[in-house]
Amino acid sequence: MPDVAELTILPLRGIPEIREGDDLVAVIAAAATLRDGDILVVTSKIVSKAEGRMIAADDRADAIEAESARIVATSADGRVRIVESRLGIIAAAAGVDASNTPEGTVLLLPVDPDGSARALAAGLRAATGAQVGVIVSDTLGRAWRDGQTDSAIGAAGVHVFEDYRGGVDSAGRPLVVTLPCVADELAAAADLVKRKTTGVPVAVVRGRPDLVGDLDLPGARSIVRERERDLFHTGSHESWEAGYAAGLAAAREG
Amino acid sequence: MPDVAELTILPLRGIPEIREGDDLVAVIAAAATLRDGDILVVTSKIVSKAEGRMIAADDRADAIEAESARIVATSADGRVRIVESRLGIIAAAAGVDASNTPEGTVLLLPVDPDGSARALAAGLRAATGAQVGVIVSDTLGRAWRDGQTDSAIGAAGVHVFEDYRGGVDSAGRPLVVTLPCVADELAAAADLVKRKTTGVPVAVVRGRPDLVGDLDLPGARSIVRERERDLFHTGSHESWEAGYAAGLAAAREG
Repeated sequence: MPDVAELTILPLRGIPEIREGDDLVAVIAAAATLRDGDILVVTSKIVSKAEGRMIAADDRADAIEAESARIVATSADGRVRIVESRLGIIAAAAGVDASNTPEGTVLLLPVDPDGSARALAAGLRAATGAQVGVIVSDTLGRAWRDGQTDSAIGAAGVHVFEDYRGGVDSAGRPLVVTLPCVADELAAAADLVKRKTTGVPVAVVRGRPDLVGDLDLPGARSIVRERERDLFHTGSHESWEAGYAAGLAAAREG
Repeated sequence: MPDVAELTILPLRGIPEIREGDDLVAVIAAAATLRDGDILVVTSKIVSKAEGRMIAADDRADAIEAESARIVATSADGRVRIVESRLGIIAAAAGVDASNTPEGTVLLLPVDPDGSARALAAGLRAATGAQVGVIVSDTLGRAWRDGQTDSAIGAAGVHVFEDYRGGVDSAGRPLVVTLPCVADELAAAADLVKRKTTGVPVAVVRGRPDLVGDLDLPGARSIVRERERDLFHTGSHESWEAGYAAGLAAAREG
């Protein structure tokens, strides 16, 4: 039985407002005293700002269009549009964000959140000597449940899944289907100290060093379910409409 | 700006194997030193065991049937069945669980997880004098993302949502759509110390006393999105098939 220790989640204070071109490694290293096995959860918003992903709000509709691979579902009143982004992530408005940005601007997600996480983890390991993992988080809605939780959209140097497949439970029986997405759980946990209005964009999770590993572990892209295996790849209404059209066409041909 | 403090998640050690009729309040009160504002995350499994929700594994198929309100989606090979349970929760196999139970048995979810949480919170407040909140958690899969995270299926004495609607961001702009489901984030955070194979069914989250409140706050049932507002209430394939049948019928009638 592995040792079970307590977990501490520390808000990182003193992170200034981030602007395009800022060196996030230097900013975070200056604000944190990091230890081996620490996992940093970094709000994607500051990664986007550092990477210059801010655009004029007037271009928001075009930006959502550009960030979208396809529309997954639209609410009956047309106000909610769930989109698969070019990153494969299914989210409202393709992750284009208008809160906590300067007036008249919106933020796009980082171009490559796993790459951003890798650069941060490599930089922080070099700068501090501590073997840390990095998660880039975003606030995502979900099917079936109201509200949002923070999830991992980028990860490096950290296991995104804790793989019990092949393991056994406390009664010695196989744990066949259990694949906890610890990256999403870490992102959710960190949100409890980062919150939305307190200007704390980074939290450090201390107490699960077993989850920290090589920089080339699979990133958060590996969490995204392939469309072929996703039983909810398209909204119920949109699927029904497509089926209806196919039924009509089949009847006319037959 | 609210004060941002660190969060600590403590595994509760020394919880014995739970059997039908066990007094969970007494067991948890004996294992924990609780403080005002602590939030206990209790794995639904031990609540089910205490409530005698264990049945013979031979009856598993019947049990899933009995626990199901409707089938939401079935995988092409028929092995994965996503079901809306009588609790409104959408989950594989209606939450009927065969891991960490005695050989030859399966566990059903508690009859009323919000009621179970309320009884635990009331009992623990009376037994310890500490104003605590309680979340009953279960491991749930999700649409679009692989793996599972722990979520709240029962809650009492704790705010399940942190409502920023009507609030403003750090630039003073309205936070219109932000409704973090802190109950699910607390459940996810606790899973990072409870894990699946370590026999730690309860964790204490310390550091968000602002989320603890009256026992009659809305429970976890309020997290479940009403079907009418759920854009993914039925699987893509099932919706397509229903639409196809309707299209055929319409063509024949027309």
